[in-house]
Amino acid sequence: MNRVTRLFQPTAPIPKSLQNSQLIKSQRMMLEQGVIRATSTGLYTLLPLGMRALKKLENIVDRYMEKVGAQKILLPTLTSDQLWEQSGRLEEAKAGSELFLLEDRHKKRYILGPTHEEAITELLAAGTRLSYRRLPLLLYQISNKYRDEPRPRFGLLRTREFVMKDLYSFDANAENALKTYESVTEAYNGIFQELGVKYVRVEGDSGMMGGSMSHEFHYPCEAGEERIIQCNACNVPTNASLLQIQSDSCPHCQSTDISTMAGIEVGHTFILGTRYSKPMNATFIADDKSMQSLIMGCYGLGLSRILAASLEALSLPTELRWPLCIAPYKACIITPKHGSKEEAASVLTQGLYDSIECNSFFKNDVIVDDRTNLSIGRRITEAKRSGYPLIIVIGKKAVEDIPRFEVIDLVNNREYEWTDGSLASRLKEYCPQI
Amino acid sequence: MNRVTRLFQPTAPIPKSLQNSQLIKSQRMMLEQGVIRATSTGLYTLLPLGMRALKKLENIVDRYMEKVGAQKILLPTLTSDQLWEQSGRLEEAKAGSELFLLEDRHKKRYILGPTHEEAITELLAAGTRLSYRRLPLLLYQISNKYRDEPRPRFGLLRTREFVMKDLYSFDANAENALKTYESVTEAYNGIFQELGVKYVRVEGDSGMMGGSMSHEFHYPCEAGEERIIQCNACNVPTNASLLQIQSDSCPHCQSTDISTMAGIEVGHTFILGTRYSKPMNATFIADDKSMQSLIMGCYGLGLSRILAASLEALSLPTELRWPLCIAPYKACIITPKHGSKEEAASVLTQGLYDSIECNSFFKNDVIVDDRTNLSIGRRITEAKRSGYPLIIVIGKKAVEDIPRFEVIDLVNNREYEWTDGSLASRLKEYCPQI
Repeated sequence: MNRVTRLFQPTAPIPKSLQNSQLIKSQRMMLEQGVIRATSTGLYTLLPLGMRALKKLENIVDRYMEKVGAQKILLPTLTSDQLWEQSGRLEEAKAGSELFLLEDRHKKRYILGPTHEEAITELLAAGTRLSYRRLPLLLYQISNKYRDEPRPRFGLLRTREFVMKDLYSFDANAENALKTYESVTEAYNGIFQELGVKYVRVEGDSGMMGGSMSHEFHYPCEAGEERIIQCNACNVPTNASLLQIQSDSCPHCQSTDISTMAGIEVGHTFILGTRYSKPMNATFIADDKSMQSLIMGCYGLGLSRILAASLEALSLPTELRWPLCIAPYKACIITPKHGSKEEAASVLTQGLYDSIECNSFFKNDVIVDDRTNLSIGRRITEAKRSGYPLIIVIGKKAVEDIPRFEVIDLVNNREYEWTDGSLASRLKEYCPQI
Repeated sequence: MNRVTRLFQPTAPIPKSLQNSQLIKSQRMMLEQGVIRATSTGLYTLLPLGMRALKKLENIVDRYMEKVGAQKILLPTLTSDQLWEQSGRLEEAKAGSELFLLEDRHKKRYILGPTHEEAITELLAAGTRLSYRRLPLLLYQISNKYRDEPRPRFGLLRTREFVMKDLYSFDANAENALKTYESVTEAYNGIFQELGVKYVRVEGDSGMMGGSMSHEFHYPCEAGEERIIQCNACNVPTNASLLQIQSDSCPHCQSTDISTMAGIEVGHTFILGTRYSKPMNATFIADDKSMQSLIMGCYGLGLSRILAASLEALSLPTELRWPLCIAPYKACIITPKHGSKEEAASVLTQGLYDSIECNSFFKNDVIVDDRTNLSIGRRITEAKRSGYPLIIVIGKKAVEDIPRFEVIDLVNNREYEWTDGSLASRLKEYCPQI
């Protein structure tokens, strides 16, 4: 049985190092509620609640990656700076000065990978005789990425070490690359729909990645650092950073009937073309036996950022709200207080726990707040702050002839009274159609 | 349906950089069979087959960690060198010169964590008012670790970036710490028994970790770099590095009736006592309300190393042998050759695939070698080289009135002929009792 008294959830005041910075809602609550812990500027530990959410998110992403036929790999984080020299990106990246650079004992220089276009392209270049029959090829990884941010802030939204899913695609020609682009876009739509946070997909800026096409996925959110333009004339949403000059018109149709909003970037897709495959000599054998450059795409999802951004978008000022599918636990049972009138109902705890858990949707996703020295009211408040989607209280009505439990449904913002007998069918209703 | 034509398994000759080094069996075959790819000295990419095995190993470890009540977290890889200064280990570690050091834009120095005693101790120290009631506390992570090895070699056995599971335990007193030590040891025994590779647990060297007790888990293996002493008098196995002077007697009972063998270290457990908690002020509130130093233990499993070491221990010179529970795929179906007499039996493929997969033990663990341009014989040879534990061939006997499939069981080194009708019950026999 999962118990709050066994859970490492060090609720802590905001650390000194952050007291003078501008804190956003999700950041403050993730820190206070023991979801994350700040260790150094822009560096965070994921505590058990945060780690459970990340793991669930990874599983969702893995499932969608499998759907599009992507295969999981793991590239080293240490990337030789020679590869970046070969792609022609080293000087520009160094000038941006967000690279973490280091040397080994032989003075060979490495980059702590902020992204892996070079590394993956080399993997396809080095002696791999790839036939057009094996394309499209989609390879992805979930791993730490590094960026020496000038201004780390907003908790997991802008850190120096973060968890990213990066997918790279390889196609024989531009037409097929576009098909791959569309199928990955569909997978991303699936992931974001499953998370259930309102999102927009906008034309993006290829920036220093190069390539011919790019889209960004954003959570519209006041705390967001990017500006999204929604054109009411042509309906094409755009990232405002695309505009060379800050204008107040749509970059597509020049209409001035636009609205803007703040957004948090949570995903980014690019068609890279031969930007990396050409200089790094990543080729395939075409059907006429000629060697041709692979057409590449790359697709990123900021996983640790999605955790924080979805909390930022959904939460109340004093209560976390998790997307149901990544909530660290889906249900929390609050037991009677020690010495209270309803204490006799404590014996119902195990049965209640088991009857919820036997619904596979809740399997290993129930936790009991067994801190019986605290009042029920106090624990309900804390359960709401932690954002358990379903809170089930063994309270006063649990000692009646037909015991009833108080149920607080944070997702739909409702309260119920359920009996043991009605529990199974009510829980079934509660499960989303997934 | 998983198909070999969709699998990214770049079989490649040994790279130039490694041609002059001493290659061991598992390393050579993992490279040749497209399980891993060398990217730079001591740095490897896990390709899809390797990644599938790693993921399975992680799941096994997670399961055993849950059994002992350990909670999963994720500490930053970048560890401030101030923490190592505080623990008093920085100078010694720098002298060993295996640390990867780097600076951020503000010239603040970081270590790429080779291990996380300092980071985890700080987590418990910084403002966490931990009651003795919450102990024991067990926290673990699975993440990349870094070591600037003077001589990286033997593939995944000695690398500069590797995947490790590190668990840290916190107890109120020495007696309880020993109980925790025993329960984690039991979990480790469970993991190694499940992997099914013969292992030994020996008294180990605490080295620069400090602390009062240490054991190592080894795979006895010719390619191993460590020397294990087995005493035939007192029966206590020991790591020979414990001996100050290379002697030929047991360090316990001084008997000279000893045998020695080579071993690959795959796990290490330590009781650290207050080695880190005292200098770093990681305390708990005792039952008499006093603040006392936490008694720590730490427990490592080299996950990427276990992959390679188990292959090294089990494989034949030209055929990989995976522990069944982490084999990238548990079964491979070989389809008829294009244009062959048995080609008509190709229609049986989907049905055969489904009937194997519907046994949950094989769920998503079957792959079809659909390279119908290659002969069956060639594909059987390759399937054996890749080490699929169960190889099922749709061959000549598949076009008889009652179709029969040739079955090669690499785990038990047997061959069978199964009909569709007998398949389900035969597969059931094949599943281990887990």
